Amino acid sequence: VFVALEFPFPAMGAALLQDGLCILFVYFEHVRKTNLLLPASYTDSSDDETSPRDKQQKNSKGNGDFCIKNIKQADFGRREIEIAEQGKHSRLSSLRIQSSEPRYHCKQKKTPPLSSSPQVLMETLSALGAQCRWAACNIYSTQNETRVFAWKGESEDDFWWCIDRCVNVEGWQPNMILDDGGDLTHWIYKKYPNMFKKIKGIVEESVTGVHRLYQLSKAGKLCVPAMNVNDSVTKQKFDNLYCCRESILDGLKRTTDVMFGGKQVVVCGYGEVGKGCCAALKAMGSIVYVTEIDPICALQACMDGFRLVKLNEVIRQVDIVITCTGNKNVVVRENLDRMKNGCIVCNMGHSNTEIDVASLRTPELTWERVRSQVDHVIWPDGKRIVLLAEGRLLNLSCSTVPTFVLSITATTQALALIELYNAPEGRYKQDVYLLPKKMDEYVASLHLPTFDAHLTELTDEQAKYLGLNKNGPFKPNYYR
Amino acid sequence: VFVALEFPFPAMGAALLQDGLCILFVYFEHVRKTNLLLPASYTDSSDDETSPRDKQQKNSKGNGDFCIKNIKQADFGRREIEIAEQGKHSRLSSLRIQSSEPRYHCKQKKTPPLSSSPQVLMETLSALGAQCRWAACNIYSTQNETRVFAWKGESEDDFWWCIDRCVNVEGWQPNMILDDGGDLTHWIYKKYPNMFKKIKGIVEESVTGVHRLYQLSKAGKLCVPAMNVNDSVTKQKFDNLYCCRESILDGLKRTTDVMFGGKQVVVCGYGEVGKGCCAALKAMGSIVYVTEIDPICALQACMDGFRLVKLNEVIRQVDIVITCTGNKNVVVRENLDRMKNGCIVCNMGHSNTEIDVASLRTPELTWERVRSQVDHVIWPDGKRIVLLAEGRLLNLSCSTVPTFVLSITATTQALALIELYNAPEGRYKQDVYLLPKKMDEYVASLHLPTFDAHLTELTDEQAKYLGLNKNGPFKPNYYR
Amino acid sequence: VFVALEFPFPAMGAALLQDGLCILFVYFEHVRKTNLLLPASYTDSSDDETSPRDKQQKNSKGNGDFCIKNIKQADFGRREIEIAEQGKHSRLSSLRIQSSEPRYHCKQKKTPPLSSSPQVLMETLSALGAQCRWAACNIYSTQNETRVFAWKGESEDDFWWCIDRCVNVEGWQPNMILDDGGDLTHWIYKKYPNMFKKIKGIVEESVTGVHRLYQLSKAGKLCVPAMNVNDSVTKQKFDNLYCCRESILDGLKRTTDVMFGGKQVVVCGYGEVGKGCCAALKAMGSIVYVTEIDPICALQACMDGFRLVKLNEVIRQVDIVITCTGNKNVVVRENLDRMKNGCIVCNMGHSNTEIDVASLRTPELTWERVRSQVDHVIWPDGKRIVLLAEGRLLNLSCSTVPTFVLSITATTQALALIELYNAPEGRYKQDVYLLPKKMDEYVASLHLPTFDAHLTELTDEQAKYLGLNKNGPFKPNYYR
Amino acid sequence: VFVALEFPFPAMGAALLQDGLCILFVYFEHVRKTNLLLPASYTDSSDDETSPRDKQQKNSKGNGDFCIKNIKQADFGRREIEIAEQGKHSRLSSLRIQSSEPRYHCKQKKTPPLSSSPQVLMETLSALGAQCRWAACNIYSTQNETRVFAWKGESEDDFWWCIDRCVNVEGWQPNMILDDGGDLTHWIYKKYPNMFKKIKGIVEESVTGVHRLYQLSKAGKLCVPAMNVNDSVTKQKFDNLYCCRESILDGLKRTTDVMFGGKQVVVCGYGEVGKGCCAALKAMGSIVYVTEIDPICALQACMDGFRLVKLNEVIRQVDIVITCTGNKNVVVRENLDRMKNGCIVCNMGHSNTEIDVASLRTPELTWERVRSQVDHVIWPDGKRIVLLAEGRLLNLSCSTVPTFVLSITATTQALALIELYNAPEGRYKQDVYLLPKKMDEYVASLHLPTFDAHLTELTDEQAKYLGLNKNGPFKPNYYR
Repeated sequence: VFVALEFPFPAMGAALLQDGLCILFVYFEHVRKTNLLLPASYTDSSDDETSPRDKQQKNSKGNGDFCIKNIKQADFGRREIEIAEQGKHSRLSSLRIQSSEPRYHCKQKKTPPLSSSPQVLMETLSALGAQCRWAACNIYSTQNETRVFAWKGESEDDFWWCIDRCVNVEGWQPNMILDDGGDLTHWIYKKYPNMFKKIKGIVEESVTGVHRLYQLSKAGKLCVPAMNVNDSVTKQKFDNLYCCRESILDGLKRTTDVMFGGKQVVVCGYGEVGKGCCAALKAMGSIVYVTEIDPICALQACMDGFRLVKLNEVIRQVDIVITCTGNKNVVVRENLDRMKNGCIVCNMGHSNTEIDVASLRTPELTWERVRSQVDHVIWPDGKRIVLLAEGRLLNLSCSTVPTFVLSITATTQALALIELYNAPEGRYKQDVYLLPKKMDEYVASLHLPTFDAHLTELTDEQAKYLGLNKNGPFKPNYYR
Repeated sequence: VFVALEFPFPAMGAALLQDGLCILFVYFEHVRKTNLLLPASYTDSSDDETSPRDKQQKNSKGNGDFCIKNIKQADFGRREIEIAEQGKHSRLSSLRIQSSEPRYHCKQKKTPPLSSSPQVLMETLSALGAQCRWAACNIYSTQNETRVFAWKGESEDDFWWCIDRCVNVEGWQPNMILDDGGDLTHWIYKKYPNMFKKIKGIVEESVTGVHRLYQLSKAGKLCVPAMNVNDSVTKQKFDNLYCCRESILDGLKRTTDVMFGGKQVVVCGYGEVGKGCCAALKAMGSIVYVTEIDPICALQACMDGFRLVKLNEVIRQVDIVITCTGNKNVVVRENLDRMKNGCIVCNMGHSNTEIDVASLRTPELTWERVRSQVDHVIWPDGKRIVLLAEGRLLNLSCSTVPTFVLSITATTQALALIELYNAPEGRYKQDVYLLPKKMDEYVASLHLPTFDAHLTELTDEQAKYLGLNKNGPFKPNYYR
Repeated sequence: VFVALEFPFPAMGAALLQDGLCILFVYFEHVRKTNLLLPASYTDSSDDETSPRDKQQKNSKGNGDFCIKNIKQADFGRREIEIAEQGKHSRLSSLRIQSSEPRYHCKQKKTPPLSSSPQVLMETLSALGAQCRWAACNIYSTQNETRVFAWKGESEDDFWWCIDRCVNVEGWQPNMILDDGGDLTHWIYKKYPNMFKKIKGIVEESVTGVHRLYQLSKAGKLCVPAMNVNDSVTKQKFDNLYCCRESILDGLKRTTDVMFGGKQVVVCGYGEVGKGCCAALKAMGSIVYVTEIDPICALQACMDGFRLVKLNEVIRQVDIVITCTGNKNVVVRENLDRMKNGCIVCNMGHSNTEIDVASLRTPELTWERVRSQVDHVIWPDGKRIVLLAEGRLLNLSCSTVPTFVLSITATTQALALIELYNAPEGRYKQDVYLLPKKMDEYVASLHLPTFDAHLTELTDEQAKYLGLNKNGPFKPNYYR
Repeated sequence: VFVALEFPFPAMGAALLQDGLCILFVYFEHVRKTNLLLPASYTDSSDDETSPRDKQQKNSKGNGDFCIKNIKQADFGRREIEIAEQGKHSRLSSLRIQSSEPRYHCKQKKTPPLSSSPQVLMETLSALGAQCRWAACNIYSTQNETRVFAWKGESEDDFWWCIDRCVNVEGWQPNMILDDGGDLTHWIYKKYPNMFKKIKGIVEESVTGVHRLYQLSKAGKLCVPAMNVNDSVTKQKFDNLYCCRESILDGLKRTTDVMFGGKQVVVCGYGEVGKGCCAALKAMGSIVYVTEIDPICALQACMDGFRLVKLNEVIRQVDIVITCTGNKNVVVRENLDRMKNGCIVCNMGHSNTEIDVASLRTPELTWERVRSQVDHVIWPDGKRIVLLAEGRLLNLSCSTVPTFVLSITATTQALALIELYNAPEGRYKQDVYLLPKKMDEYVASLHLPTFDAHLTELTDEQAKYLGLNKNGPFKPNYYR
C-alpha cells in the first residue's frame, strides 16, 4: 500500500503509496542503503521478540522514518539486489530510459545504478521524480525482508498502524494511490477523506481491490478515477497464468518435497491461476481434476483434458487439494474430514479465505508445526492433513515470484500511474478504467528483448488492410 | 448467408440470413429430404459440367426453390446426418427443448426427429418457428455437399447470384440477418436498403464481417443493432483454439501424410488459431517458430516456449509454413522463393489473402496438381513447394469441423438471434454489441453434459461474498 | 512376404522374401512401371468383381509374373511415388550410395531414379543386386494399391495362394527370407523344408513373427540364423511410439471426425504403441485411462499421468476404446455390452485378435456400414458402437505410415539382410539375434540429416574416459 | 557405502556395504535415536570448525561407533522422519511384511515402527536381520544431515577415512557389498582383498560403479558375482527419467529462482536424465536444444521436438546449460568464455566431471559465493556465469529426492542383495548380472498401490496365447 507524496518536479510529480506482491517498498534516495531483500533461504538467527514498532532504528544517513524488522540486514539485501540485477529481467530500466523522452513528459533525474527487481518500481518512480511511502497490505502473505513499514508477523493492529504511519505524515500529502487489495484506499476513505481533494487517481492491482472499486463506482462513491491494472492482459497472463504455472511446483516442492508424478490432484477454480496450476501438474504427470462454477471456464477445463467434478466426488481419493477461486470457504471442514491421510491442502487463490482454516482449530484436532509454513493437522484416528501456509497464498508464502513477472507488474503499475497523473482534464472521470490497450502492448514490447524475440512490423499496406495504426493498438480492448 | 423470412408466429418470428462455416443451409420442412451432407471421402463419379444455375431440380415434394449440385445425393446425405447424430454432440437439442419454456417466449412446433450437426442451426431455428433461406458466403472455402443456393466451384458471379436469389424473393422479407463475412449485409445495404426497415438486427460471426460492422458503426451508417458473436468467449475458444488445435493436424495429414515429429514449422500469428496450431504441433514433436506483430501475443508465444522470429530468419530451414494472422500478404513471393524444396505452405487464418498465391502464377513456375487440394509449384531449378488448398483455409478445405464446435457456434448464433429479436425496445441501439456474458455462459452450460462435467454451484454465502448472482454472469464482460 | 531369388552377383547375392507394413512389393526392373501406389483418397470407380487370380495382366514389357488388382493404375501410382520422393524422407538412398563402398562389398548396378517410400526397400535391395518376389502377409491390414501378389480383399485362400506363388517358382530359389508375421517362414517350413538348405537367414520384423521364431528356437527347430529386427531400438521407437503417436489421431479423424478435446478414452496396453497413443490424446485434451498387465509399464503409466484401471471400471463412461496389447480378447462382448451409445472401438495393437469381433456377429445385433472402415453395430435398444476397420489395425487400415518411418524400418531390414548374408561363417548360429547395436545406431545416423541434426563427436579423451570406440556402439546391447 | 556385518540369523545373514544417493546410513537398533535427517531448509547456526573426526560423540545409549557432524540434531531428524513417513510412499514396508513369508526365507525380527524414506533400506535390511555399516561415497554430492561415517565438507582424505572406518572393524566381516560408485569395492580390492573370501556378492547401483565392474569382469578380475541394479528398468526410469523431470526444476528454482518460461536452454545428453530434464523444461515453456553423441538418442530428441545441435552453435544465446552425459569435460572453458552474461551452468549427470570447473579457477576470474551452492564466476569484462553446486550434481546438492524414488531404488537394492545372498550355488558366476526381470516387475508391483493403480490379470487363455506365465515375467530381459 503506497501513498505517494506530492511531486516536487514540474514535469511529472507523482506521489505514491504502494504495497505489492511482497515486493515493493518505499524508495527514498537516503533510505537506499537500508533496502532489505533477503533470499528465501535467509534465516535471521538473532531474531528477537521486540516489536519493530518499539525499535529505534536509523539508516546510515541517520534517518529514522521507517519501520522494519532489522536494518542490520541491509548489506545482505544489497547483495541479493545485485544478484537479481544480473538476471537482467527487469525492463523497467527501459522505461526509465524512455521516460526521459517527451512522450511521457517526465524528467529523469538520473539513471539509478540499477535496482533489483523488488525495488524496481519504487526506484523507477523515484527516478521519475516521485516521493514514496509504503506499507504492506496483507499481514500474512508477505515475507519479512522486503518491507519498510512492514514486517513478517504483523498483527491486525500492526497492519493498520503501518498504513496509518504511511498516510498520516505531517507536511506531506499524496496525489496518487497505488494500492493492492484496497485497504489503503479504504483507510483514506474512512480516516482522511479530505486527502482525495489532491489525489488524481488510484491504481489498483488486485482482484479484491478492483472488486471494491467497482462497488464504490456502482454506489456512486468513487471520487477519483481508478485504473484497474489487475485485468490488463500482460498482468493477468504473467501474474496468474505464467507465474503460477511455475510457483505451484516450486511452492509444493519447497514445503513438502512431494513427487508430482502419479499424484491425484484437485484444483478448485479454472481461471488463469487454475489454468497455470493444472498445466504444470499435468505436465509433471499428475492426474488433475477441476472444480468450477463458471460454465465457460468449466468447458475450457474439459477441452484441456481435465475431468470437471464437484469437490466431494474426488475428495476421498486425491493427494493434493489446491484452491484458486478467489472465493471463500471453497474447502470446508466437511471436505477436510473426508480427505485421506497425508493429503496436502494449499491455497493459490486469494488471501486466506478459500480454505476454512478456522474450522480446524477445534479441540479434537492436534496441530503440529513440522516445518516453516507446514502444519500437520491430526485427526483423532491419526489421520494427518498437511496444511501449507495456514491456508494463505502458497505462491507468496512458500515460493518466489520471478523478477520477470515483477517487472511486468511494476511496469504496468508505473505506466498506469503516469497515465492517470498526466492525462488531460476530462479523459478520465470518476470511474474504473482498464489500462489502455496501447499501454498494455507497450509493457509487453518492453519485455520482448529479454527473450531475444523479434517482432514483425506491419507494412503500410497491411496496416491499411486491417484498419490499424502500425504502432498499435493491435487489438480491441476486450481482446484477451 | 441466410435470409430469413418473416415469422408467422407471434411469440417469436425470426427471419434470418445466414452463411456458415461451410455447414449451414436452408431448412424447410419440405426440403428436408434434399439435405445434402456428404462425407469428406465422397466423390461423385457422375459430376458433370452443367452449372447448377442451369439445372432444373425438384425435391421429393416437387419444390424447386433451391439450387444445388445434385439432389440425387440426398439419401447419402441423410445417412451421414444420422451418423453425426450418433455423436450426440449437438446441444442445440437442449436449446430446442428449453425453447418451449416461457423464457424465450417461442413456440416450438415440434421436436424434429433430430438433426445432424450441419443442419442443427437451421433445423432448430425452424423448429423455433423461423423460415430461412441461405447461400454460401465464400466461393472458395466451402465444400460442395452442404449448400442449397451454393455449390463447390461457384464463380464470383455465381456467388452474388446465389445471395441475390436468397434475398430477392417475392412476397417475402427477412427481419433478421445472420451473416458470416458481411457479404450478405453488404449486398442488402447496396441493393435493397429498404429492407432494413423491417430488419431487427444482424448477427455476424466472422472477424471480417465484425470488422466491417464496426466500420459502419464508426461511420454512423449502421442502421440496426448488430451482435458480434465472433468475439463471444465460447465461440472464440472453440472455433479457433480448440478446433484448430485438431484441424491443423488433420488437414496436414489428409493432404500430405507428413510426419510431424522433428519437423520445423513456422506459424505466422499467435492469436487463438495460432495458439491452437502451435500447441498441437509442439505436442507432436515439431519444432515451432512464431511470428507476431502484437507484442502481447508475442510475449505469450515466448512464455509458451516458441522462438519469436521474423519470417525471413527461418524461412530457409522450415518444413512447414502456416499462416494464422487474418492479415494479407503474410507470405509473399520473396518468402516463397527462399523456402527449401518440399516445404509445405498452408493457411489457417482468413479467407485466401494471407499467402500471395497470385505471385506464384507466373510463367517460370509450373503448377502440378498432385492430389485434391494439393499443388506442387515447381521452380526452374526443380524446387517444389507444396501449396495446400491454393492458399485458402486448410481447416475448411481439407479437414472437418467437429460437430461439437459447430454446435457451440450455432447455439451462440441462435441465442444471439433470439436475443436481438426479442429484446425490449431500446435495449440495443444502432451499434455493435458483444453477446451478453450470461448468454455466453448459457451456451457453455448447454454443452457441459457432453463431457459428463459437473458444475459446482455457489452457496448463497459465496455468491454474496463475490457480489454475484448465483446463476451468473460470473465474470465481467471483458473477461476472456 | 518376399521371396528373394538367388543373387546373380558375386559380391552380394541376397534373395529375399518379404512382407511389410502394407508397403513393400517385389521389385523387378521390368515390373517397375506396374508399381501401384494409390493415395488414401483414391477410389477406383471401375472396381469389378473378377478375382485378380483370374485376370490376365501384363506390364508394359509384356511380363505377367505378378498378380494385382488393376495394372491400369500404374501411372497414377508412379505419380504418387514422385510425390513421396519430394518428401526426401527416405534415407535408404544414403544407404544405396554408401552401399557401393567396400564396407558392404556390394555392387551397385545403378542409382535408381529414386523411389517412393513404399518401394524404397525393394528398389534398394534390387539396386544392391537382389532379385525379389513378394506377397502380402495379412489379408486384412493392407491397402489395395501396393501389392504384386496381393490385393485388397484377399480371402484366406487367396493369401496362401499368393505366398505360394511367391515361393514356388521354377528355376529359382531364395537364399534369404524377409518376413513379417512369420507366415512365409511357416509356409516354407511346412511345404518346402528343403529350401532351408540354401537359405542363409531370416529377418523378421513383427512381434508375432519374432515370438514364433523364439518358440522354434526353444524347441530346437530353428535351422538357420534369424534376426529379430522388431526389437531394434530405432524400429521400436519409430514403428511404435512415434508412428502411433500420429496415426492414432489420423486414423480416428479420417474415420469418425471425432473431436479429441474432452473425450474420455481408455487405452489397453502401455507398451510403445500405447505410450504413443496416450501421449497424443493427452496432448489433444482427452482424458486417458490405461489398462496394463505388466507392473513396470503400469507404473510408467502412473508416472506419466494416466489412471491405471481395469477395463470394467471405466467401460461405461468412455467415448473411445483403443487396444494396443498384442494380446487376444482384450475387449470382449461383455465389455461391448456395457459401453455407452456412440462409443468408438478400435485396435492399434496386433492383427485382429484384440477385439472379439466374432462375438458381435450375432443375430440380435445389426451391423451397418456407414463409411469405408466404419461399422455401426446396433444393439436391440438402439445403442450403437462405432467399430473401426472391423477390429483390424487402425493405423494400417485407416491411416498412412509416414515415409520416414518406412525408411527407418526398411533400412533396418536391409542392414539385417546384408549382415546375415555377409556374416563370416560362425558369427551367427541357429538362434534368434537382436540387430547389432552398431547397426541400429547406423540406421539412426542415416536419418539425422533429415532434421538438420548435428551430432556431437566424442573427443579422444572422452572416448577413453567412457571406454568407448569413437564411432560407437555407444550403449550396451540391453540399452533402450 | 555400507559394510554389513555377518548375519547372526541362519535364514538370511546379509552383511552389507552401502553408499547411497545421499540417503542411506547404518542402521543399528541402538543408534536409532541418532539418525539425522534434516530438511533442506535446515541451517545449523552453531556449526563449528572442529572436524567430526576429532569429536567425541555418543548416542543416547552411550555408543560411539559412528562419526557425524552433530548428534544433537537427532531429535530434529526424527521429526523429519515422521513427516516423511506420512507420505506413505515407501513400499519397502510391503517388502518387510512379505519378507516374513517363506519365499525369501528370512526372519523378521519385528516390524519397525516405520521408517522415513532415507532410512528405509537400512531399517528394512536390519529388520530382515542384517547388521550394517556405512559411509558416504562421494565427498561432494551429499548433504550434511544423513550420514553416520560421513559429513558435509569431507576432504578427499576424510572420505577414504570414513570408508576405512566402515570396513576395518575388529571381529566383524561383511558378506555382501552394497556399493554406489564403486569406491568401496575398489577399497576392499586394494586394501582387504582377503575379505572377498566371505563375500557372496556385490550390488552396485551407479553408472560409474557398473562400468568399473564390467571392466573388472572383462579383465577377469571379478572374484564374486555382481548385480547391476543401475540398469533395472524401474530404477532407470525412476532414478533418472521421472526423478530428474522434477528435480531439474526444483534444483534450479531453489538456487536461482529463475523463471523457466521463454528461457533458452541447452541440455547436453539425451539419455533418461536428459529426457526428463528436456520434458520438464519444455512443459514449463523453455526453448530447449539438445546435444548428443549417440545417433539413436539424437533421433529421439528430434522426434520429441528438440533441435539437435553442437554445443557451440547455441552457446552464445542460451540462458541455461545443463549437462546430463555421464561424460567428462562436456562444458569446457572455451564454452564458458562464450556464454552470455547471467548464463546458469549446472550438472545433472555424473559426479563432478562434466563441467570443467578447474578451468575456471584462474586468476583473471573472480568467484563470488552469492548463496549456498551458487557461485558467480566473474570475467574481467564483468560478465557473470552462475555456477551451481560447483559443477557437482544439482539434483543431489540442491534438490531433494522424492521418497517414492528412494523407495524404488532401495527396494531394488534390497531384492538384489537377497537374491545374491540366497541364490543356490551356481546360479551366479563371477560376472555382472542384470536384475532378473521378474524381480524388476516385483519392485514395480509393490509400488502400484501408492497410485491406487489396478493391474489387469491375464486370463489363462491369454497367458497361453502369449506363452507367458500369468505372474510374469511379462517381457524379455532386453525390454525397456
